[in-house]
Amino acid sequence: MSGGRLTIVGLGPGDPDWITPAARAAVEDATDIVGYAPYVARLPERDGQTRHASDNRVELDRARHALALAAAGRRVAVVSGGDPGVFAMAAAIMEALEDGEAAWRALDIRVEPGITAMLAAAARLGAPLGGDFCAISLSDNLKPWEVILARLDAALAADFVICLYNPISKARPWQLGAALERVAARDPQRPVIIARAVGRPDERIAIAPACETRAEEADMASLVMIGASTTRLVARDGARPFVYTPRKVSGAAG
Amino acid sequence: MSGGRLTIVGLGPGDPDWITPAARAAVEDATDIVGYAPYVARLPERDGQTRHASDNRVELDRARHALALAAAGRRVAVVSGGDPGVFAMAAAIMEALEDGEAAWRALDIRVEPGITAMLAAAARLGAPLGGDFCAISLSDNLKPWEVILARLDAALAADFVICLYNPISKARPWQLGAALERVAARDPQRPVIIARAVGRPDERIAIAPACETRAEEADMASLVMIGASTTRLVARDGARPFVYTPRKVSGAAG
Repeated sequence: MSGGRLTIVGLGPGDPDWITPAARAAVEDATDIVGYAPYVARLPERDGQTRHASDNRVELDRARHALALAAAGRRVAVVSGGDPGVFAMAAAIMEALEDGEAAWRALDIRVEPGITAMLAAAARLGAPLGGDFCAISLSDNLKPWEVILARLDAALAADFVICLYNPISKARPWQLGAALERVAARDPQRPVIIARAVGRPDERIAIAPACETRAEEADMASLVMIGASTTRLVARDGARPFVYTPRKVSGAAG
Repeated sequence: MSGGRLTIVGLGPGDPDWITPAARAAVEDATDIVGYAPYVARLPERDGQTRHASDNRVELDRARHALALAAAGRRVAVVSGGDPGVFAMAAAIMEALEDGEAAWRALDIRVEPGITAMLAAAARLGAPLGGDFCAISLSDNLKPWEVILARLDAALAADFVICLYNPISKARPWQLGAALERVAARDPQRPVIIARAVGRPDERIAIAPACETRAEEADMASLVMIGASTTRLVARDGARPFVYTPRKVSGAAG
């Protein structure tokens, strides 16, 4: 059947004023909304639009369902928080597409980018991503913990600012603490930021040296940012200090 | 003088439908627009709004000028392409603030995030950033070339997807070629993407193995993305293949 379409849409961190007009149009045009329940719940219900909300950690099932709907002629919006390409649904759709029915490859499949959590957190802080940086998912559901540690060590040695996505959950309670210990062992004063729910009413941002940061301050709605060796604070009267990483690097890395 | 305000605004990659409502509102509210001339030129002229367009590579002068305008009571929008925190104006403003007049620290200074080039390029490609990734500015104006090489090597060893910002310019003609040689020496078949002017009328995207990618295909408007060892192509009929990096990592990194 023709006319089917699948758009993987980034809703941004939560503030409606951070949703791009293109993302909003893709949602409004859809006959079917597919996504993790809290993201679907952000959208107003619309006449003639069917909502398919699913649990977390069923990304591949959700991706196949969305592709099957599009193949049946529906206009499907798969919604992600943040940007759909950063530790979100775009990769799951691609995996389902590669292993799925041949006809799915003829579908009109698009991605609409969104403001990802690290950009929102950086905006609130000043300019912590002013130098080179990396993004690492701390979830060891799909990759071995030793790979995560090797990447963390490489990023510290190369002096990247490090953004940790999926830092902690009930099923993964100790990994963030282990990562923070690694940072503190190298540089106890390194600034660490826990940016929780940026752009939502329950936003909370904490800045502290690595040696004083406790993993329990973070939750599933948090992004954790570890400064580079050059990352600095700029004090302000009556306001949280700015955090920034200068553009200039003088010595050799490491 | 009170009432002054400075907002550092991300205009996204160029497509007006990728400008967030918050960024648009900050631009419309401003009495003064400050920025690199091509970004200022993207905005319609407005009555009562003064435009201060400047050359490239004068970021600190531009930052001081914007802070002085805000201190004089103006509502200033400093505009950047993409996201202002990613190799753009936010860090320059922070540097000027730290070294500048004490009164500047009392100003109302905010950052409005935008869609940065790597997210726009990733959206066009499928899900190349599906795994861990890093962003490196290839400009050696403000950091030594050996630091850039060390970071590139660390990122390759840790198997990050690598996004290269500022890949090439008239003043820096050979650096991208040297970086690509390094990638090809490690893995000649590694997918390399040159994503030029994504979201603008002259958008152009090229996907090729590292050994076949020529630096001259990129220009100042390009983002270069180097796949991880796991990054794959999904062929489609009559369309550019999708590029994606699976979420799953099996072995150890490196």
